[in-house]
Amino acid sequence: MGLIVQKYGGTSVADIDRIRHVASRVIKTFDEGHQVVVILSAMAGVTDGLIELAHRAARVPSKREMDVLLATGEQTTAALLAMMLTELDYDARSMLGHQISLLTDRCYGNARIHDIQVDRIQELLQNRTIVVVAGFQGCDQDGNITTLGRGGSDTSAVAIAAALKADMCEIYTDVNGIYTADPKAVVKARKLDRISFEEMLEMASIGAKVLQIRSVEFAKKYKVPLHVRSTFTEGEGTMVVEEDAGMESVVVSGVTFSKNEARITLKQVPDQPGVAAKIFAPVAEAGISVDMIIQNTLASGQTDLTFTVAKGDFEAAMQIEREVIGKIGAEDVVGDDNIAKVSITGVGMRSHPGVAARMFSTLARENINILMISTSEIRVSCLLKEKYAELAAQALHAEFGLDAD
Amino acid sequence: MGLIVQKYGGTSVADIDRIRHVASRVIKTFDEGHQVVVILSAMAGVTDGLIELAHRAARVPSKREMDVLLATGEQTTAALLAMMLTELDYDARSMLGHQISLLTDRCYGNARIHDIQVDRIQELLQNRTIVVVAGFQGCDQDGNITTLGRGGSDTSAVAIAAALKADMCEIYTDVNGIYTADPKAVVKARKLDRISFEEMLEMASIGAKVLQIRSVEFAKKYKVPLHVRSTFTEGEGTMVVEEDAGMESVVVSGVTFSKNEARITLKQVPDQPGVAAKIFAPVAEAGISVDMIIQNTLASGQTDLTFTVAKGDFEAAMQIEREVIGKIGAEDVVGDDNIAKVSITGVGMRSHPGVAARMFSTLARENINILMISTSEIRVSCLLKEKYAELAAQALHAEFGLDAD
Repeated sequence: MGLIVQKYGGTSVADIDRIRHVASRVIKTFDEGHQVVVILSAMAGVTDGLIELAHRAARVPSKREMDVLLATGEQTTAALLAMMLTELDYDARSMLGHQISLLTDRCYGNARIHDIQVDRIQELLQNRTIVVVAGFQGCDQDGNITTLGRGGSDTSAVAIAAALKADMCEIYTDVNGIYTADPKAVVKARKLDRISFEEMLEMASIGAKVLQIRSVEFAKKYKVPLHVRSTFTEGEGTMVVEEDAGMESVVVSGVTFSKNEARITLKQVPDQPGVAAKIFAPVAEAGISVDMIIQNTLASGQTDLTFTVAKGDFEAAMQIEREVIGKIGAEDVVGDDNIAKVSITGVGMRSHPGVAARMFSTLARENINILMISTSEIRVSCLLKEKYAELAAQALHAEFGLDAD
Repeated sequence: MGLIVQKYGGTSVADIDRIRHVASRVIKTFDEGHQVVVILSAMAGVTDGLIELAHRAARVPSKREMDVLLATGEQTTAALLAMMLTELDYDARSMLGHQISLLTDRCYGNARIHDIQVDRIQELLQNRTIVVVAGFQGCDQDGNITTLGRGGSDTSAVAIAAALKADMCEIYTDVNGIYTADPKAVVKARKLDRISFEEMLEMASIGAKVLQIRSVEFAKKYKVPLHVRSTFTEGEGTMVVEEDAGMESVVVSGVTFSKNEARITLKQVPDQPGVAAKIFAPVAEAGISVDMIIQNTLASGQTDLTFTVAKGDFEAAMQIEREVIGKIGAEDVVGDDNIAKVSITGVGMRSHPGVAARMFSTLARENINILMISTSEIRVSCLLKEKYAELAAQALHAEFGLDAD
């Protein structure tokens, strides 16, 4: 007997039949005696359709009005599920962002949650009502509708679970859980039974798309146990939990790669104070995120400076830097967007020295040249030529003992 | 320089191009120096599509959740219009029912308005913002979403106009205004320049579908001048205003007919106290509205009792009365659903005696038999065989001097 928050993603509520299946899963949990809060995404494709509609209405749609428009997607699924549950004689009620006072800042399209008034939800739960919350949406203190960004329903779910001090937050999706690597690229990938918040955070930030990264930050901060599992099969998924002693014995828990990378190098940049700012300020002003940066001082007193951006930003960033090199007196700018980033992640790295070296040796054994390296406390990432991405991931997966039997 | 409320119906916002056209009309009014509040319906067909979706989710959808679902239709059009106006450099903001505290009772699907907090709208108008309100929706005092019934956006518009003490409430639709008769049936029908609230009420209640009847009641009560006009043409439409002396000189201002009628007669009912209640109580319990009732006492001390219902309720009502006649000892029940009701309306009737007689003579001249008669202070209605409806309307239209030149 506990309080369970369940979040169902867009593919889980893609049509009436799938919503009916969600209803049956919700009822199963409720009938086991739990209090249940359900958070829903919009039907798969609906949000994209609304964005397209908005762009037919306006070249640059008002961000405030975009959120008003997008919020209808989750409102629709929440109403439909509540109808189905009611029809099956369960007391159910849909709740929109403003109805549970899910208060956010006014950053339309990417709002952050400040507070949630859970009194109303708690009152309903005590009356044995199933509460169906429209995910992805909140409101600011003036009652304007806001949305939480792509994957924001994950964050809605975790934030509500945290506010309610829920016993479990279940994230239902179209995969069985978190894998040691992408099963499409690494055939011997295994589903993980458990993973720590820290590892999940690193994996979410380097291409694992199962959870919105902010939802993991939230879960970590408020210690909300997550269970990532499939809507469509019955088995257990992956528990995302606080790190414990057992986890350290595993050196690497996952291998990920991203092909959404591009690399730009400015050659023979004068090595003077303030030059880096001149290189990166115009990129930031254009709204382009820079990932890795390497600076390599040459014997000549000049320096080569290399950085990476997402592939979609490559052309724009190249254009900017072509203008920059004239102003700062660098020699040339060259770029490459046939690049991938391969990463290994694991809390065990903290207590096992030499993990990075073992990664480099493995890649060397496969004759894969490393273009750039970046590390965090529990992650090592290497930039490679794109064509080596799968080979590198498979080799690392085997090297760190992750291959399925 | 005034405060203008404009309401645009479903066909006026049926797609992006039409909403763009609405934007241009709104801007034209704003640029003339007026403060403008726009009330929008859902795109034509969207509400029906959502109702169908709900019925695929549940046989009898929860009324509360149906309103949550339906409210998305107006939310969508309000956001899209506000985006367009913003793109064209006009300050515009969408407002949902709860955001303007359009408070209603909790009668989901057919809620009545209790109050509107206009402070926020007034503040926006004073800052030269165009306020775009999602019609049809409100909320109860606990924040549950409610809707106002078919055509409810008319009522939203009139209620908001009344609360704001607007100078004019313009109802934009796909017809040019209010006609002396349905132009599809009576080719010589003319558009009226003016009509009184009372006449509009009678016409709305007997089949003229231009305005929701409750919106007219509201306009009459709060003396909100209405201007019913076309979105698609530039000309003036019909003003719905308080009765004035000039209107009395016109005896009949409109001829309407409805084919949505059925008649049921109970024969040789014992003429005892309490019998009528036994006949009509079970009909009311089944949610069936009865329109006309005639009782005709026979020489035998018994009575024939005839009443009319909407055509869609005919079979159900017949079924009920077949059971009733056994209980009350009536002889038989017979029915007919090939029936129409033709009405003439005009405030001038109050000061012109003999209007009803002139109507009966006109019908007699056309050899049309009158089956039932009902009257109000400013209306006379006759029940006829359905096949005579158009002929009767044309003859009455000519008789009372309404034909166009």
